[in-house]
Amino acid sequence: MGAEANLKAKGIELPAPPEPSANYVRYLMVGNQLWISGTGPGGGPVSYRGKVGKDIDMDAAYLSARQCGLNILSTIRDALGSLDRVTQVVKVLGMVNAHEIFTEHPKVINGCTDLFNEVFDDKGVPTRSAVGMSSLPNNISTEVECMVLFE
Amino acid sequence: MGAEANLKAKGIELPAPPEPSANYVRYLMVGNQLWISGTGPGGGPVSYRGKVGKDIDMDAAYLSARQCGLNILSTIRDALGSLDRVTQVVKVLGMVNAHEIFTEHPKVINGCTDLFNEVFDDKGVPTRSAVGMSSLPNNISTEVECMVLFE
Amino acid sequence: MGAEANLKAKGIELPAPPEPSANYVRYLMVGNQLWISGTGPGGGPVSYRGKVGKDIDMDAAYLSARQCGLNILSTIRDALGSLDRVTQVVKVLGMVNAHEIFTEHPKVINGCTDLFNEVFDDKGVPTRSAVGMSSLPNNISTEVECMVLFE
Repeated sequence: MGAEANLKAKGIELPAPPEPSANYVRYLMVGNQLWISGTGPGGGPVSYRGKVGKDIDMDAAYLSARQCGLNILSTIRDALGSLDRVTQVVKVLGMVNAHEIFTEHPKVINGCTDLFNEVFDDKGVPTRSAVGMSSLPNNISTEVECMVLFE
Repeated sequence: MGAEANLKAKGIELPAPPEPSANYVRYLMVGNQLWISGTGPGGGPVSYRGKVGKDIDMDAAYLSARQCGLNILSTIRDALGSLDRVTQVVKVLGMVNAHEIFTEHPKVINGCTDLFNEVFDDKGVPTRSAVGMSSLPNNISTEVECMVLFE
Repeated sequence: MGAEANLKAKGIELPAPPEPSANYVRYLMVGNQLWISGTGPGGGPVSYRGKVGKDIDMDAAYLSARQCGLNILSTIRDALGSLDRVTQVVKVLGMVNAHEIFTEHPKVINGCTDLFNEVFDDKGVPTRSAVGMSSLPNNISTEVECMVLFE
């Protein structure tokens, strides 16, 4: 089953693609590589802000990373016309707005890569780093940057 | 108008290319991709050091990011012989030495991407993440890593 | 002398390749680019944990970064069958679990790139950023992500 069919079958709805808030573009294509800007959790049911483990708990942080993923999927569809053109999510940099004693970044960023896995099956499981930032723009709880291959 | 002509028309002078301070190289070419190491704001009119929002203000932080950009342009010219060979700035990772309550990373890193935009026009507007680091080498206020395409 | 011969001559033994602890893969090949996930210092003689400059000293931090490098070499050999197929280490993102006043990230991450240099000679010297993270998974002291070319 293709990614768009997966999305439909699972009842996943994508938000409108996010608008850049500064001097950059959301995505660029280089050959068959689609580079996607660092994407926050805006447009979700709640506002995911604050330090993970201090201001918001693990469940909310997981959903924050999932919302980053939904926004990225929306950007990919906007760029390529259809998610079905994605052949592999290659690289994810998962950034967590984290306290200096936080240790569970991988569980947080699974919120994004679990979503990619649901939608793209094996092709949605990327190489990844999941790490702690001292702060993020507008105090968002998570931000995800990625590169995917397409045909 | 090409990038070198833009630079001249706007009276922008490039510093000498920065020297690596450890075991790495400033740039590498992979096909038509030019990868550039994380670049600090050295060689500017002042020393851009300290936490943004605490030790240095937003105006200085913007100039710090611009100085990173000037150093990157110098590296690109050194690598390619001329800035005119750049066809697209693809990816910028803009790192801000930021306090845990800082929220305006995008405005800071605009100092770099506004410069790229001035010099390369639309080709200078990349995908980007602008995020907060707990600390940076030598306590510099900003560091920028990027990848550009060339012909 | 090739990389495998270098390794043997210098008596460097590689650990077993690390297993992903979350929803990602250790590596992916894209054409002749091998992308490698953020890799920690597990499997070493000691457990490299805590903030560099506070909980562990510079010598241990250097060894922590070297252990990340050993794990990456193990992943590369697992992916390609032999280290001799590597033609260039292109890009290293060296992440240090660092206090907000830490300034010596380059010396720490040399632990990884010095190793790559020993093993791959000039081909082991990459473009690089060496920066401070507010926290890392499981409180590891260093994490390294990279991309290498192979044939």
